[in-house]
Amino acid sequence: MEKPVILVTNDDSIVSPGIRALVEVVQKFGDVVVVAPDSPQSAMGHAITIHDPLRLQKVNVFGSTPAYQCSGTPVDCVKIAIDKILHRKPDLCVSGINHGSNASINVIYSGTMSAAMEAAIDGIPAIGFSLLDFSFDADFKASKVYAEKIVRNIMNYGIPRDCLLNVNIPRLPLEEIQGMRVCRQAVAKWEEEFDKRIDPNGKEYYWLTGNFVNNDHGKDTDIWALDNGYVSIVPVQFDLTNHQGISYLNKNWSMES
Amino acid sequence: MEKPVILVTNDDSIVSPGIRALVEVVQKFGDVVVVAPDSPQSAMGHAITIHDPLRLQKVNVFGSTPAYQCSGTPVDCVKIAIDKILHRKPDLCVSGINHGSNASINVIYSGTMSAAMEAAIDGIPAIGFSLLDFSFDADFKASKVYAEKIVRNIMNYGIPRDCLLNVNIPRLPLEEIQGMRVCRQAVAKWEEEFDKRIDPNGKEYYWLTGNFVNNDHGKDTDIWALDNGYVSIVPVQFDLTNHQGISYLNKNWSMES
Repeated sequence: MEKPVILVTNDDSIVSPGIRALVEVVQKFGDVVVVAPDSPQSAMGHAITIHDPLRLQKVNVFGSTPAYQCSGTPVDCVKIAIDKILHRKPDLCVSGINHGSNASINVIYSGTMSAAMEAAIDGIPAIGFSLLDFSFDADFKASKVYAEKIVRNIMNYGIPRDCLLNVNIPRLPLEEIQGMRVCRQAVAKWEEEFDKRIDPNGKEYYWLTGNFVNNDHGKDTDIWALDNGYVSIVPVQFDLTNHQGISYLNKNWSMES
Repeated sequence: MEKPVILVTNDDSIVSPGIRALVEVVQKFGDVVVVAPDSPQSAMGHAITIHDPLRLQKVNVFGSTPAYQCSGTPVDCVKIAIDKILHRKPDLCVSGINHGSNASINVIYSGTMSAAMEAAIDGIPAIGFSLLDFSFDADFKASKVYAEKIVRNIMNYGIPRDCLLNVNIPRLPLEEIQGMRVCRQAVAKWEEEFDKRIDPNGKEYYWLTGNFVNNDHGKDTDIWALDNGYVSIVPVQFDLTNHQGISYLNKNWSMES
């Protein structure tokens, strides 16, 4: 039997320690190809590059594992990997390990998760991994153990139809992690606070900052799981239709033309 | 009673004809403030700007209606409007009218829809409008008539909880539009095809192109509605949890730690 082809990408760039950790995990499961951004692309959401040309460069950063850096977004990386490098769909796409949480509403802003979502839209089993530690020198030891468990599960038992997985890992030593939990996305949001400053020319500019506000006290959420020492696994869909909303509008709105 | 405060944004930039059409529609319903990108931001998805400072400039492009251009993404525009311009949540946020379709899977890539989604996450009733015509000189006459009907509906009858609306308008004269239909998002995707070229220095570069592939033949989809001359209205959610996926994983995967 042929080995599965596994595409690895991320949003922190091809030289981040998180993607190296993930490459080391999936090398045990198949033939790995890395296609990742040549510069940090955090918080790029599902952006694609349509007004600028893209550059693609083969680089030697993972030994014998083929690796390419791309000037585009994480979603661009997945698209160009399929069309111009693999010339086929990979059997699995993994994205990360992100330096920082993508739990709850962060899934919407995340470049890591958008890359995985792009693969899932194309029918490819896909997982985004994130560690709750923003630092460049984050310790991925425990993350690697859980990423391996999760990749083994997807290889052995598959993934639900029309889904990708959003996996977040608490910032804890391996022995303090309580296990894995399948969760729903907590209902939370960011409350923005822009930091206003004056540049050397006397002009105003702003830095986006914000506070994460979680008003969801359910014990079945990803935030609860992470707060209680578990690795959270949320099955994520890309059909955004709210079916209850269809009933509401057909019942309450005036639709005559 | 105080007039409602209505925030208008888009992703094609503050000088696009589509946003002007939308401003003219909503001026009938409340006090309008425009905060939109200073350059085109199509296909930006739910990107936010965290590595660069943002600029904000009051501009005079809509007569007595206050208008600000922002150097960031559509989502940045909504965030900075709430925190630094309105100093409150608006009563309604409308985004568009986009020059080009945001039906089906395009909702995922769309800056227009991401701006509306950002407002919805913040609990603000929000609508993204798109006309199926990419040209700068698109005719928004019919779009304005339907945008007005839809804004009147939201003012009179509300919007389903935790939803925003994705409205797409066919490229047809008003008298040929068949009316409005509430729809689900068609299951479709883009098949990417990168156009490889050589720059004057002999180096390769790529343009992203692609074909829209719709294998969903349901008559309840947005694509069907648009193909048949209707304005499509899809209620869109930002809780991406796939609940059937939770059952699948709990049943089939091995979760012991």
